[in-house]
Amino acid sequence: MSDTQATPKKPITAEPHRHDAISPFPQSQKIYVEGSNSDIRVPMREITLTPTPLDPNDLSKVEVNPPVRVYDTSGPYSDPSAVIDVKAGLLPVRNGWIEKRDDTEQLTELTSSFAKLRQADSSADHLRFEHKIQPRRAKSGKNVSQLHYARQGIITPEMEYIAIRENMARAEAAKYPELAIQHPGEPFGANIPDEITPEFVRSEVARGRAVIPANINHPELEPMIIGRNFLVKINGNIGNSALGSSIEEEIDKLTWGIRWGADTIMDLSTGKHIHETREWIIRNSPVPVGTVPIYQALEKVDGIAENLTWEIFRDTLIEQAEQGVDYFTIHAGVLLRYIPLTASRTTGIVSRGGSIMAKWCLAHHKENFLYTHFEEICDIMKAYDVTFSLGDGLRPGSIADANDDAQFGELRTLGELTKIAWKHDVQCFIEGPGHVPMHMIKENMDEQLKHCDEAPFYTLGPLTTDIAPGYDHITSGIGAAMIGWYGCAMLCYVTPKEHLGLPNKDDVKEGIITYKIAAHAADLAKGHPGAQLRDNALSKARFEFRWEDQFNLGLDPDTARSYHDETLPKESAKVAHFCSMCGPKFCSMKISQDVRDYAAKQGYEAKGDVIQLLDLDDAMQTKAQEFKDQGAEIYQPVES
Amino acid sequence: MSDTQATPKKPITAEPHRHDAISPFPQSQKIYVEGSNSDIRVPMREITLTPTPLDPNDLSKVEVNPPVRVYDTSGPYSDPSAVIDVKAGLLPVRNGWIEKRDDTEQLTELTSSFAKLRQADSSADHLRFEHKIQPRRAKSGKNVSQLHYARQGIITPEMEYIAIRENMARAEAAKYPELAIQHPGEPFGANIPDEITPEFVRSEVARGRAVIPANINHPELEPMIIGRNFLVKINGNIGNSALGSSIEEEIDKLTWGIRWGADTIMDLSTGKHIHETREWIIRNSPVPVGTVPIYQALEKVDGIAENLTWEIFRDTLIEQAEQGVDYFTIHAGVLLRYIPLTASRTTGIVSRGGSIMAKWCLAHHKENFLYTHFEEICDIMKAYDVTFSLGDGLRPGSIADANDDAQFGELRTLGELTKIAWKHDVQCFIEGPGHVPMHMIKENMDEQLKHCDEAPFYTLGPLTTDIAPGYDHITSGIGAAMIGWYGCAMLCYVTPKEHLGLPNKDDVKEGIITYKIAAHAADLAKGHPGAQLRDNALSKARFEFRWEDQFNLGLDPDTARSYHDETLPKESAKVAHFCSMCGPKFCSMKISQDVRDYAAKQGYEAKGDVIQLLDLDDAMQTKAQEFKDQGAEIYQPVES
Repeated sequence: MSDTQATPKKPITAEPHRHDAISPFPQSQKIYVEGSNSDIRVPMREITLTPTPLDPNDLSKVEVNPPVRVYDTSGPYSDPSAVIDVKAGLLPVRNGWIEKRDDTEQLTELTSSFAKLRQADSSADHLRFEHKIQPRRAKSGKNVSQLHYARQGIITPEMEYIAIRENMARAEAAKYPELAIQHPGEPFGANIPDEITPEFVRSEVARGRAVIPANINHPELEPMIIGRNFLVKINGNIGNSALGSSIEEEIDKLTWGIRWGADTIMDLSTGKHIHETREWIIRNSPVPVGTVPIYQALEKVDGIAENLTWEIFRDTLIEQAEQGVDYFTIHAGVLLRYIPLTASRTTGIVSRGGSIMAKWCLAHHKENFLYTHFEEICDIMKAYDVTFSLGDGLRPGSIADANDDAQFGELRTLGELTKIAWKHDVQCFIEGPGHVPMHMIKENMDEQLKHCDEAPFYTLGPLTTDIAPGYDHITSGIGAAMIGWYGCAMLCYVTPKEHLGLPNKDDVKEGIITYKIAAHAADLAKGHPGAQLRDNALSKARFEFRWEDQFNLGLDPDTARSYHDETLPKESAKVAHFCSMCGPKFCSMKISQDVRDYAAKQGYEAKGDVIQLLDLDDAMQTKAQEFKDQGAEIYQPVES
Repeated sequence: MSDTQATPKKPITAEPHRHDAISPFPQSQKIYVEGSNSDIRVPMREITLTPTPLDPNDLSKVEVNPPVRVYDTSGPYSDPSAVIDVKAGLLPVRNGWIEKRDDTEQLTELTSSFAKLRQADSSADHLRFEHKIQPRRAKSGKNVSQLHYARQGIITPEMEYIAIRENMARAEAAKYPELAIQHPGEPFGANIPDEITPEFVRSEVARGRAVIPANINHPELEPMIIGRNFLVKINGNIGNSALGSSIEEEIDKLTWGIRWGADTIMDLSTGKHIHETREWIIRNSPVPVGTVPIYQALEKVDGIAENLTWEIFRDTLIEQAEQGVDYFTIHAGVLLRYIPLTASRTTGIVSRGGSIMAKWCLAHHKENFLYTHFEEICDIMKAYDVTFSLGDGLRPGSIADANDDAQFGELRTLGELTKIAWKHDVQCFIEGPGHVPMHMIKENMDEQLKHCDEAPFYTLGPLTTDIAPGYDHITSGIGAAMIGWYGCAMLCYVTPKEHLGLPNKDDVKEGIITYKIAAHAADLAKGHPGAQLRDNALSKARFEFRWEDQFNLGLDPDTARSYHDETLPKESAKVAHFCSMCGPKFCSMKISQDVRDYAAKQGYEAKGDVIQLLDLDDAMQTKAQEFKDQGAEIYQPVES
């Protein structure tokens, strides 16, 4: 059994990243849009496009295609001007904002007993991130959550940052209205505004309809928001297990995951050195990091669930909060009375956290201590601004168990807990299933909105069938796209290895891209202004045989290019006015370009009225002969 | 530029199949269910499962898990007792049925001039399938379509065969009612009966709501049905293009595609030797073969669309009908008046057939000859029982162009043509898009049902976003699952190479599996009786750590097994009561099995009423201590 222990005393290397994880995207540059203050610098990726030739005989006549800006989760790693040193971590871009609020204090020592023990354990020295600064905590009596600020009417720099980030596609659409034409969406009651202002961000957070996971001890964070009136987000899970993977691999997975679009990362490590692994991840993560603290608490009692105590759990929360974890999955809704409801299920309890708590409850015949101590947890959360991700410990693990009494019973309890969190001005979102057939997905969303009063929903898939192990990124990508459309705010990715093994980097990428597709398909269906601009730009490039632009506008330029190269490897084919499907003589796109050129020349612009066009028949008859006479063929071969 | 011409005189080998394409599936056997007559033998695949151990201390105590039967499209290739000789072709299982109807005659010579020329061309001898029999045609004045028989109240052997095939999961569900428990579906107006009888098949065909593509010259066919009251089907495209692939490769793709679940195959060849390639494919295909005859007609006029004539096209239809093509895509809805409506589109006309006809219409300023000669086409179709697949030549090629006037204008014309086909008792289904955002998919289905009077719909995807070249099996799998749920009868697969290159065998498999997922997710959502049985059996295997059963019940056992092996390669891990995600000490499934064992022992069966269970609190308190005393842990390590 391999573990990080298997390679003792091997220090963390300064450059664990694969080169391809930190190189810029092709034809892309990192840009930063400044906010009201120069320390608000919102990163975006700008893809440069080639011009469209308008006249094959005069190459100076071109249509300029404007660059396309895309939402960028990759952090400084894709910025060639940034100095990347994982031993130093990322720059603490939020430090000034946090300090300026003057409601936190730098601690002189760590609060958690376990963290202190780890600090004192010299056998882990070689694995330890070298801390430069001590963590912070809210000053006594202060609440440092973004929800607390929002409710007082304060627009934080985080909120302004997010407004710029979320409004980016709208700003681009305003610049290029013709390229940004899109279908009206069907938002299912979501309120998707024409402009995302800092005040809109504040009001959504204040209402509890959106969260900004942003621990004060994660100053390296580039703020982002989760809520159904904003772009749909995705989470990628990483984490070592008892059976494999090292700290280097996990940092690799982090930078790899955010390169392809993970909006948050959950560190689900269950092996040894959880504490040290997490520190490296957070210090190097520009995206929020979530954890399931009960996993580590269980390690502390050697895997024996019934030995868990509130005190051990509480210490774990503080340990992780002071490291900078941005959100905690807390399975506080697994109540004693729901547990027997799972007994007749096909797949019982499949959530690890849920099954741990169920075992504890049964062994002690006591109510879940996460539930009974929920208000004390809130006190911890608000001292660091950790956001609740209320775990669905009783989520269905099979189609058979979807939407059953255990699941919906727990969901109602999560609704009660949401209101308690809100009472404490603690940010909160809700986790959801799991395995659900398509026709039962919407009920999940509707029930969640109702019982949790519109707190953001964060679902795993759902998987729409159980019969495709090895392809559960796809079975779940279908459900994820649908529930994203219905209003789910964040989609937890599933990789092809789900149910079978530990994902490697290829699996992580496959899972991330699948979920970016689901999230974007949902954004289109909801009608986020500007969302269709990238589709339009890519389709225009496709239609105009601008192959490189087509690749570069895609979610994964490398794969698109390599697939094209498999059939037509020559560089000249990249500018060919044909593709491998039809060959040079026979191409529907080329023919329809002929049709368009012709129709445009003859004044046959679409009027949206079929009948009117018939009046042009006489003129057309004359022109038809002209077209034939001219050769009716504009193909110019570009290679032999 | 490679072509089949590049390897002249190389004869077709007798065994082009990869071994893995003809071996039986693991732990599976081919079975045949007989109908009312012994020549009706319906193939199914039966997956044998291992028993569930009930007592770790007494291995003789087991729960027997019944074998699971699955719909099988793979034909004789997966039957180890079948003799596979591609030079001889498959056995003509339908010959007796066709002869018995006594409404066809064996031709003494081929009807098509082109086919005769090919026959006389000795330079193609090495590529030619050696014909044993001459084709058939309806006797003068006869209509040999399944629709014609159905309307006269005749239940053909094809219909009985299909009833057995479609009813299989229901029959299994009746045998194992507990394993077959499933959620009620939401069929959106589809009429999904409790039992599929031969009479139901007949009535659906008679109503035009379902089609049985079954050319009398394709006696090797294992009949299947396409209609929204039956299981959702998928099509896989194969076919060489001017840029690559040989006859051997195409037959390989055929056997490979049906192995993984393609219900029909479309041969979209556009290179040389289309005629010979097609012959090999049909003689070796147990599934219906579709084509787009205009592709070959265009080859005959050297790729110059405006030189196409009705006569050349007519000869091509007859040529292909006498080879045994089961359905023809005919782009008869691309009317002159719709063409200018595409001029202002983002991606114009992307259908090859559509763009050919558009070019012809503009060049001649005449109405589409497929439209003006539609009744003559019907006369050909009914003489061989070729089914119409009315092509959507104006389908949208981008999100921007979805559901526009050109698309819906053409759809209404396809509705008119449907009624003309039905007037001739010719079977007919309708092709659909394309690229459509999620929220606009249902409108496609609803419009199609309305205008085409419930004739089956057959869609390409639809792709729900344009921004992921390299992953369009996924962008489209999302849309395919949804439109399948809404009532689409057949889904045309999309491979990862879509828009980029020619699919290889891996791409074909990836596309097929993705679409099997979409089709099955749709079947679950529609509530086909018995559809959930396979999900339930797989989930039960998963929950009980029957790893091999989990792999074998999946759509792709090979991939599932290989993924598991990557993390836990040892054979013993296949019987481990844990998996690689959590390791041996910490497993949610194991814990929840403990919970279930415990709850069951204490009589805590779920009653569907949460409150009632609280009454058991006192008894539970006592038992909690017992549980702890007993160790509260049942894990028995199976390997060190």
